[in-house]
Amino acid sequence: MNADQIRGSNNSLEISPVRVGVLGFGGLGQAAARVLTPKRQMLWVAAADHQGYAYNSQGLEVDNAIATYNSQGSVGYLQPTGRLSSNSIPELIAAASVDGYFLALPNLPNTFMASVARQFIASGWKGVLVDAMKRTSAVEQMLALTSELKDAGITYLTGCGATPGLLTAAAALAAQSYAEIHHVKITFGVGIANWEAYRATIREDIAHLPGYDVETARAMSDAEVQALLDRTGGILELENMEHADDVMLELAGICDRDRVTVGGIVDTRNPQKPISTNVRVTGRTFEGKISTHTFTLGDETSMAANVCGPAFGYLKAGIALHQRGICGLFTAAEVMPQFVR
Amino acid sequence: MNADQIRGSNNSLEISPVRVGVLGFGGLGQAAARVLTPKRQMLWVAAADHQGYAYNSQGLEVDNAIATYNSQGSVGYLQPTGRLSSNSIPELIAAASVDGYFLALPNLPNTFMASVARQFIASGWKGVLVDAMKRTSAVEQMLALTSELKDAGITYLTGCGATPGLLTAAAALAAQSYAEIHHVKITFGVGIANWEAYRATIREDIAHLPGYDVETARAMSDAEVQALLDRTGGILELENMEHADDVMLELAGICDRDRVTVGGIVDTRNPQKPISTNVRVTGRTFEGKISTHTFTLGDETSMAANVCGPAFGYLKAGIALHQRGICGLFTAAEVMPQFVR
Repeated sequence: MNADQIRGSNNSLEISPVRVGVLGFGGLGQAAARVLTPKRQMLWVAAADHQGYAYNSQGLEVDNAIATYNSQGSVGYLQPTGRLSSNSIPELIAAASVDGYFLALPNLPNTFMASVARQFIASGWKGVLVDAMKRTSAVEQMLALTSELKDAGITYLTGCGATPGLLTAAAALAAQSYAEIHHVKITFGVGIANWEAYRATIREDIAHLPGYDVETARAMSDAEVQALLDRTGGILELENMEHADDVMLELAGICDRDRVTVGGIVDTRNPQKPISTNVRVTGRTFEGKISTHTFTLGDETSMAANVCGPAFGYLKAGIALHQRGICGLFTAAEVMPQFVR
Repeated sequence: MNADQIRGSNNSLEISPVRVGVLGFGGLGQAAARVLTPKRQMLWVAAADHQGYAYNSQGLEVDNAIATYNSQGSVGYLQPTGRLSSNSIPELIAAASVDGYFLALPNLPNTFMASVARQFIASGWKGVLVDAMKRTSAVEQMLALTSELKDAGITYLTGCGATPGLLTAAAALAAQSYAEIHHVKITFGVGIANWEAYRATIREDIAHLPGYDVETARAMSDAEVQALLDRTGGILELENMEHADDVMLELAGICDRDRVTVGGIVDTRNPQKPISTNVRVTGRTFEGKISTHTFTLGDETSMAANVCGPAFGYLKAGIALHQRGICGLFTAAEVMPQFVR
């Protein structure tokens, strides 16, 4: 007798997989497609980039899609399902039957993700949206859309990658042992073999360095990024980053945002992580003891695994909320992600 | 501008605190009352033990209640609100206006918690129930009540202490990075200055030792427990324990129950933990890497803090579910606990 039989419930996700779209098809979008492909509970049916889109209700084939994007610059060239379009997101929304989208889009410009959310609201589409955005100011723009999303019948989960996301949720859990939270400290290590596979992500990291901002980092040519990385030996050291973990933990009632700090070390020339990614939650228990819980990610897990896995776990949780008619905006600190088989 | 203002929502819990009852008033129930007392979002209004109960809609006073119980053996002696009764739970349910109860009752006999749940179902009371039960077989009895709880308008959260509870939820979160989970290993350290403050809990631990079971451990006199602890230097070493983390992670779709193991070391003569309590989740990522995420509790946090804090976090989350009309049975691995201020 297994647990489902004891419980007398059927998991409908086993019968009819969740139809998933991925918007953005750079490093993160491609990893998302690879994460999705073996899953029985989800079916990857749609992808879009800024030049086109592809949709197949029976499922897209990941190797073809990636080879097409990498050789021709857009999934719109995919045969026979691809379409080239300068208006790819609204066209895909109209053309495709999709239960939930993962927005694996560039974080820059900072207003981009909210503008995409507005396109979904305007389209009349109903379903689940998940992003893995990083910046506090970008998540705040999404918070401002809460009532519009709710009225539109959209369940939107924001900040659902690794950090913010998995580590924010771990901090929200760890906080439970304490009467008062003094400090949440997130320290990440990222190792990638080659920065050019993550051009947008690395520019976002550069934007956190002293002397740079979102605009100057985005305007850098590949040669300028390369020259910067040559000067630093491929290492980017980041402190006191503007990361949405702070607003998400404040919203969840755990602590004021100024008690949350995020920093890390990115090695752009080595897939080994320079340090183990972790979150440390320090607080006072009801007996007056000060202590620290720690959640540490295994070094062998990649940024792609720690972003895309949680993102789809939140997407599955979002489907359950949406099926109950619960719409609006939620963060990774408020919802338990569900494991996707 | 704070996060709530950005979001445009009001937290109704700030206005009207959740009225909470605690059933059972031994070590765990007393700690629960102490955890509750400083919280603004919850008000401790009711307590019961097997000889009586106390209810005050304006809140119970924790020092009086504990002193009364410890000197006279029941909160029923509390003046002026206590009542002596051999049928304390049904009488309290009928007498009190309570939004949610924490069932800080003995885990033994193994059928006890389910029998209390049936009393709530029979009473017609609607609200939130939270337990911190440990054994797989006890949680399975609760799973069998899923549809009855749902029909009764009760939102029941089971296995919501430390382990199962906080560590099970951490395992469910950690699993998100992986395509497949190979092993979840929970190792706890508990240090208590004096076993007699946790007579029921220590007997439950003894029941896990080779040569003992639930019945023989429960039948032991205090002198027999003392003699056993004298032989072991106050240490109880527990391996392959029957802990409901296994069925809860199986239900959440994370892995089969035989991949979950729980063990630990209990020092009954030293409040220092003999080892740091932790959960290690080992799995395979979508790229084929094997790795392990680890969640470790700070040594200075007590069993009481790690059980009662999460229990009330789940109770608050249960209130939100109940307000949306979502009833039935949930485990700590399925719901994100909310931080209670």
